[in-house]
Amino acid sequence: MELTLDTPLDLHLHLREQEMLSLVAPFSAAQFAGGVIMPNLVQPVDNLERLRAYRKEILAACGDLPFTPYMTLFFRRYSRNELLEARDEIIGVKLYPAGITTQSEGGVRDFDRIGDTIALLEELDIPLLVHGETNGFVMDREHEFLPVYQWLAETFPRLRIVMEHITTAEAVALLDRFDHLAATVTLHHLMITLDDVAGGLLQPDLFCKPIAKTPRDREALRRAVFSGHPRLFFGSDSAPHPRHKKECCGCAAGIFSAPVALPMLAQLFEENDCLERLDGFISVNGRNFYRITPLPRQVALERIPWQVPEQFETVRSFLSGKTLSWRLKNQPETTGNH
Amino acid sequence: MELTLDTPLDLHLHLREQEMLSLVAPFSAAQFAGGVIMPNLVQPVDNLERLRAYRKEILAACGDLPFTPYMTLFFRRYSRNELLEARDEIIGVKLYPAGITTQSEGGVRDFDRIGDTIALLEELDIPLLVHGETNGFVMDREHEFLPVYQWLAETFPRLRIVMEHITTAEAVALLDRFDHLAATVTLHHLMITLDDVAGGLLQPDLFCKPIAKTPRDREALRRAVFSGHPRLFFGSDSAPHPRHKKECCGCAAGIFSAPVALPMLAQLFEENDCLERLDGFISVNGRNFYRITPLPRQVALERIPWQVPEQFETVRSFLSGKTLSWRLKNQPETTGNH
Repeated sequence: MELTLDTPLDLHLHLREQEMLSLVAPFSAAQFAGGVIMPNLVQPVDNLERLRAYRKEILAACGDLPFTPYMTLFFRRYSRNELLEARDEIIGVKLYPAGITTQSEGGVRDFDRIGDTIALLEELDIPLLVHGETNGFVMDREHEFLPVYQWLAETFPRLRIVMEHITTAEAVALLDRFDHLAATVTLHHLMITLDDVAGGLLQPDLFCKPIAKTPRDREALRRAVFSGHPRLFFGSDSAPHPRHKKECCGCAAGIFSAPVALPMLAQLFEENDCLERLDGFISVNGRNFYRITPLPRQVALERIPWQVPEQFETVRSFLSGKTLSWRLKNQPETTGNH
Repeated sequence: MELTLDTPLDLHLHLREQEMLSLVAPFSAAQFAGGVIMPNLVQPVDNLERLRAYRKEILAACGDLPFTPYMTLFFRRYSRNELLEARDEIIGVKLYPAGITTQSEGGVRDFDRIGDTIALLEELDIPLLVHGETNGFVMDREHEFLPVYQWLAETFPRLRIVMEHITTAEAVALLDRFDHLAATVTLHHLMITLDDVAGGLLQPDLFCKPIAKTPRDREALRRAVFSGHPRLFFGSDSAPHPRHKKECCGCAAGIFSAPVALPMLAQLFEENDCLERLDGFISVNGRNFYRITPLPRQVALERIPWQVPEQFETVRSFLSGKTLSWRLKNQPETTGNH
């Protein structure tokens, strides 16, 4: 049995740099026609020169695989000219509150002072992508940030806003209040709760930001995604860390889900009797909201059990060691080790 | 400046066996006149022969230090004769719901079927110590268990019940409904929340069961302890794991706080202007509830900054590397490494 997906997109993706970029980019490029590339490198991507160089590195890392990197600029105060010049080369600007996640120290500290830049984004019709968390108690951070989304949506009624990697029932509910608000959902937040991270033995491989929430939250995400909400689309937030950074005292946050994204999504949608809605989640909804027309690309899965390797070079993958019911057709020889 | 504590007790303590017992017991014996010893060894302590042998091993591991191990039996269905015979050699029976924490697989699966044994405990005036968690969502497990405490307290009105290592505001509130209900509180639950475990980098060293809860819960614990609640007493729940069990994929739960317990408690009570209530928390309240009269022993702290070693042989301590404002007088040469 085969499943052919039409131009699947990963609309929230961390590809890192250098050796790590070379290691991880092919996994995304093998499955997706394109992806929205996060700009929080060690040195954030906050100018056009750097963005162009990074884009080139990504394309080189993808080799012959036809993958379109949709680039984003790291939010700072930009001038009108800067944004005008960047406009055709970016899909949006990504805003991080300061210190909220990996390499976000240069993020926003004072939302009252960024209204002028956001007004420019609205005027130039450049989407704003937001990591929506406060610095509060870890389980409440997204919930506490929702008033900022509401303020943005009310103050800038023509700005397209993407709530990135939402994890709570309340964020799902907010989506229905504003047509110009959309959200990405990761694979792992459709699958795990805090129980999987810290309910039995502690599982550093499942530690991510935003942290996995409650069964009730997961249920709200699943219901909205599996029912085909038109402003929810897939963003893996795949974020590789070398294994030693997941095991030392003080483990980095981030789940590397790129190698398993499409097969596991197909399995999830099939298990929930909504396989016909998978194209919406992984392609149509995002294309509509972003108004992009990626080069068409068919990606085929086949219904052959696939055991995910324990490790890909230095990085452990989400679901490593597990057996999935679908695999990529013509699965490339991976460098994984069992 | 010196602080002399009168017969301090650690009323919830894991000492393990063999090499680990030899390593960790002296830390407790150096600071405490006695401790309530948990019975969840790999092979649970559920008969008198085993209990006597374990007690001997503990005394041997303490060497010349005058430390009284108050022994507990692992809850199972016991006969009247078994309990009668054990009565003078135990401080109580410790109940674990099945599978809820380290080595609790042999715990209770069906509370409806243990009423007869609990009635015997009540009749023989043997306290029941309880690890009060369900198998539910990790942040809700203690809260969900409270109806079981309430059922126990209402059904067995003369049974002394200890809610072990409570972590929630709701458990504190329950304490006030029944005079025959008491609770232990750990050092770490007075200090950390889930934020410390998973709010920044993931910290396996701070992963424990019950998991650290919310700032609101910690505040309720602190308020009750620092105000001198007469049925709250100290139980460190110090639970050493060799370092490799805290770092591999799947880290064991447990914080090893024995080496820092008294100095850090003194610092906490001092910072909260209630140093005069420390004796109640670490000695008087527990002695009164358990009706025990340990051999008097004065333990002195001195106000000299002390940097906690990074590691004690194979085990990392709570607060390792931190500098505390008090230290044990005549601090023994530790085997710690900076």
